Amino acid sequence: MTISINSDIGESFGIHSFGNDERLLPLIDTANVACGFHAGDPVGIHDVVAKAGAAGISVGAHPGLPDPVGFGRREMKLFPEEVRDIVLYQVGALSAFLDAEGLVLDHIKPHGSLYGMVARDDQLMDAVCDVAVQYGVPVYGMAGSAHEQVAQRRGVGFVSEFYVDLGYRADGSLIIARRPSATPPELAVTRARLALTEGVAEADTGERVPVRVESICVHSDTPNAVDVATAVRAELDSTTSDATSSERVR
Amino acid sequence: MTISINSDIGESFGIHSFGNDERLLPLIDTANVACGFHAGDPVGIHDVVAKAGAAGISVGAHPGLPDPVGFGRREMKLFPEEVRDIVLYQVGALSAFLDAEGLVLDHIKPHGSLYGMVARDDQLMDAVCDVAVQYGVPVYGMAGSAHEQVAQRRGVGFVSEFYVDLGYRADGSLIIARRPSATPPELAVTRARLALTEGVAEADTGERVPVRVESICVHSDTPNAVDVATAVRAELDSTTSDATSSERVR
Amino acid sequence: MTISINSDIGESFGIHSFGNDERLLPLIDTANVACGFHAGDPVGIHDVVAKAGAAGISVGAHPGLPDPVGFGRREMKLFPEEVRDIVLYQVGALSAFLDAEGLVLDHIKPHGSLYGMVARDDQLMDAVCDVAVQYGVPVYGMAGSAHEQVAQRRGVGFVSEFYVDLGYRADGSLIIARRPSATPPELAVTRARLALTEGVAEADTGERVPVRVESICVHSDTPNAVDVATAVRAELDSTTSDATSSERVR
Amino acid sequence: MTISINSDIGESFGIHSFGNDERLLPLIDTANVACGFHAGDPVGIHDVVAKAGAAGISVGAHPGLPDPVGFGRREMKLFPEEVRDIVLYQVGALSAFLDAEGLVLDHIKPHGSLYGMVARDDQLMDAVCDVAVQYGVPVYGMAGSAHEQVAQRRGVGFVSEFYVDLGYRADGSLIIARRPSATPPELAVTRARLALTEGVAEADTGERVPVRVESICVHSDTPNAVDVATAVRAELDSTTSDATSSERVR
Repeated sequence: MTISINSDIGESFGIHSFGNDERLLPLIDTANVACGFHAGDPVGIHDVVAKAGAAGISVGAHPGLPDPVGFGRREMKLFPEEVRDIVLYQVGALSAFLDAEGLVLDHIKPHGSLYGMVARDDQLMDAVCDVAVQYGVPVYGMAGSAHEQVAQRRGVGFVSEFYVDLGYRADGSLIIARRPSATPPELAVTRARLALTEGVAEADTGERVPVRVESICVHSDTPNAVDVATAVRAELDSTTSDATSSERVR
Repeated sequence: MTISINSDIGESFGIHSFGNDERLLPLIDTANVACGFHAGDPVGIHDVVAKAGAAGISVGAHPGLPDPVGFGRREMKLFPEEVRDIVLYQVGALSAFLDAEGLVLDHIKPHGSLYGMVARDDQLMDAVCDVAVQYGVPVYGMAGSAHEQVAQRRGVGFVSEFYVDLGYRADGSLIIARRPSATPPELAVTRARLALTEGVAEADTGERVPVRVESICVHSDTPNAVDVATAVRAELDSTTSDATSSERVR
Repeated sequence: MTISINSDIGESFGIHSFGNDERLLPLIDTANVACGFHAGDPVGIHDVVAKAGAAGISVGAHPGLPDPVGFGRREMKLFPEEVRDIVLYQVGALSAFLDAEGLVLDHIKPHGSLYGMVARDDQLMDAVCDVAVQYGVPVYGMAGSAHEQVAQRRGVGFVSEFYVDLGYRADGSLIIARRPSATPPELAVTRARLALTEGVAEADTGERVPVRVESICVHSDTPNAVDVATAVRAELDSTTSDATSSERVR
Repeated sequence: MTISINSDIGESFGIHSFGNDERLLPLIDTANVACGFHAGDPVGIHDVVAKAGAAGISVGAHPGLPDPVGFGRREMKLFPEEVRDIVLYQVGALSAFLDAEGLVLDHIKPHGSLYGMVARDDQLMDAVCDVAVQYGVPVYGMAGSAHEQVAQRRGVGFVSEFYVDLGYRADGSLIIARRPSATPPELAVTRARLALTEGVAEADTGERVPVRVESICVHSDTPNAVDVATAVRAELDSTTSDATSSERVR
């Protein structure tokens, strides 16, 4: 099986950007594009969608909480109908730009705290699945969490992600800092290798946590995102070069 | 020819609403639903779209400037690409809710100052037409303005509106107050009758201004919106009862 | 001891308002004015501050979470420094309008979910107290909660509120609905009387919960806010007329 | 007379920042700190105010239009009372952080399109002066424009700025790009020298435009802001070293 690289991009806000988007596009297989609530403005979203299309990258929606100052990383108590309508609004908006550029929505991957909220709460994940069903697309998420369980129950496709630039807790949950620091590229590669060959991640407290890797996520808001993506890309290409093409999964 | 009534609704903002939406739905033919930038939040938009669907009303997009405090009534200097992407973002978001409720987008009608800006500027109206072409829907606007001229040049459908609850200037432009006051229902009927029978509006300075009426707009944010819509509905039904059905145009 | 009535007002958002502010001012002793994050825009804040000044009402700050769509009633996970700086920003902004109208800040009362968050978390309440110390004003809150405990430890003045238009749980916490319904004025009076004479509230599950009443809060966003305030005002005036002046506490 | 360097800083937005603030502080005399409407969030504002205080830099308010996506660089049609209350709100908020850090407000300098709007419109500049009078501080602006004329009429202090990283038009107005490009440091120095020695700027069309330099502005959102500030600082220090101290003006 071929492992893809996905990256959260398009997270500019007007004049502000992380500046890594264009250099990440040639290194990844699919882009999770911010949709305007935690980051992303209409012109910036259109721009990154067009660039992803030109680079031949598929595009998924990366909807977040309505909190641009907190970059969607401050958990909010929301009703399921609020989660559904916040996701539906953002997926619809992104889809308009995809359609303008001749692309179709590839998947949905909630951002930041919304990702964590729907990993732990079946009702909230059910609300996300309402949108996935409407658009006929899979959801990216954490294997074993409500992400996967509810998606399966709803007949929604599911892609299990592994994170090379975040720490894991012993219970398998992610340690998400508000402002992530750089991950040394060699550490990212070590983590990817361990996950791919042995199916585990090393928790911050030392335990080995089982993980399932169908796609590897590289964030765009770390200082060295391009270096991390470059190293992981090389690792994936080398491990798949025997049996399969080293072409990017599209 | 049958004249429809359109109304700008869904202009709630969280807990705040004008409170007229539900009572207007049975009186109108088509609803211009706010899309989140000047007003409207995801749950509120979904709610009004569902109610419009239940009432058998067609729904158009009512995209506005990104200025909720100003209710989209403070003109902003925008580039054409900004107008296009602001409109595309909002039309896409609204379309997601329409699709969820089994409805299809009926038309696009820019809101407030955006409506005025694109009435006067061919490039900005061209940007709106990009979105209308993408969605294959007509634009509502002012006959004789850039609304109509650019729509015609672009092959975009056009519906000429008449306003019974706004004043006209001698040059045919609308007098839009930030916080509109109530229009006496009998004045709304008088204006509608004059426009329908003689094709003119009376300007604030007394001149007669030519107008073309294909649809009559009733705002939802005036204190007596329901009374105005009721009176205009009765007038339209009485004038069309001889030759055509008094059924609402759907 | 004289019991005051306080009311959360100035919670308009641009064109949207609850419309009760002007009629509440003659009925209350002190106003908690929204500061722009959950509600309130600069012109609206200035307007209500001027009206409160003209009515001889003292004005406190009513800072909320940065969530206008949720009206500050969706809990957010915030760091203490975020709570401190969100409150400091809003109190500073309100103080500028007070100063422009010749008034001084009377107190700080956090709004909605922020009120509940700081009632349960000493560190967050400590952050609010940083601002209260800086401005030398008391905090309004719930007796027995972190509101009171931390205020006392910090040497910050504290005013214990009783709510006549909200339900209480058996543990003494408030039941805050996103969109509060009307409270029958006679029920509000019954609650006030019970609290004032016996020092208890009746919980939704029937238990009697001890309360301490130094000020009675009447919300402005309920449909019959003015009726509730009128009834409570009359009750307070009648009970204090024997021993003290029926004048409003200023 | 000693010429100061002022810089617009604190223009982060949550996780996003230009990253030049800390390196600019030792190079400048006074900081114009964003106040939350075009950029700047409560925690970020507090942080930069504390750093400016630690660096011994005076701090002025840099209030902008309520348009974070447009970075306050999209002109909006506002009433004078809206300009006054937008500025008052932001100056009040900033002042709370200054007070928390033991600093006092040094001046007011409107940002971006608001700066341009009040340079051309006496009524709008009058609204800014209302706030300057309330706080007893001078306004930074363009000599000869409404900035200076209205400030003089109102008895408000005025500091005439010269821009080394923006182009001038033949009429003396500034050419403000949405996303400024880098100015070569040697060009900045040449412009500063010409302005200081001959009192002119060279317009984009070649004409010489009279300017008066009391303070030189260096923006923080250009790619090489630190290089520009370093070069201008060196130039100012060298030209003042004969007669006066090369110490920064504080």
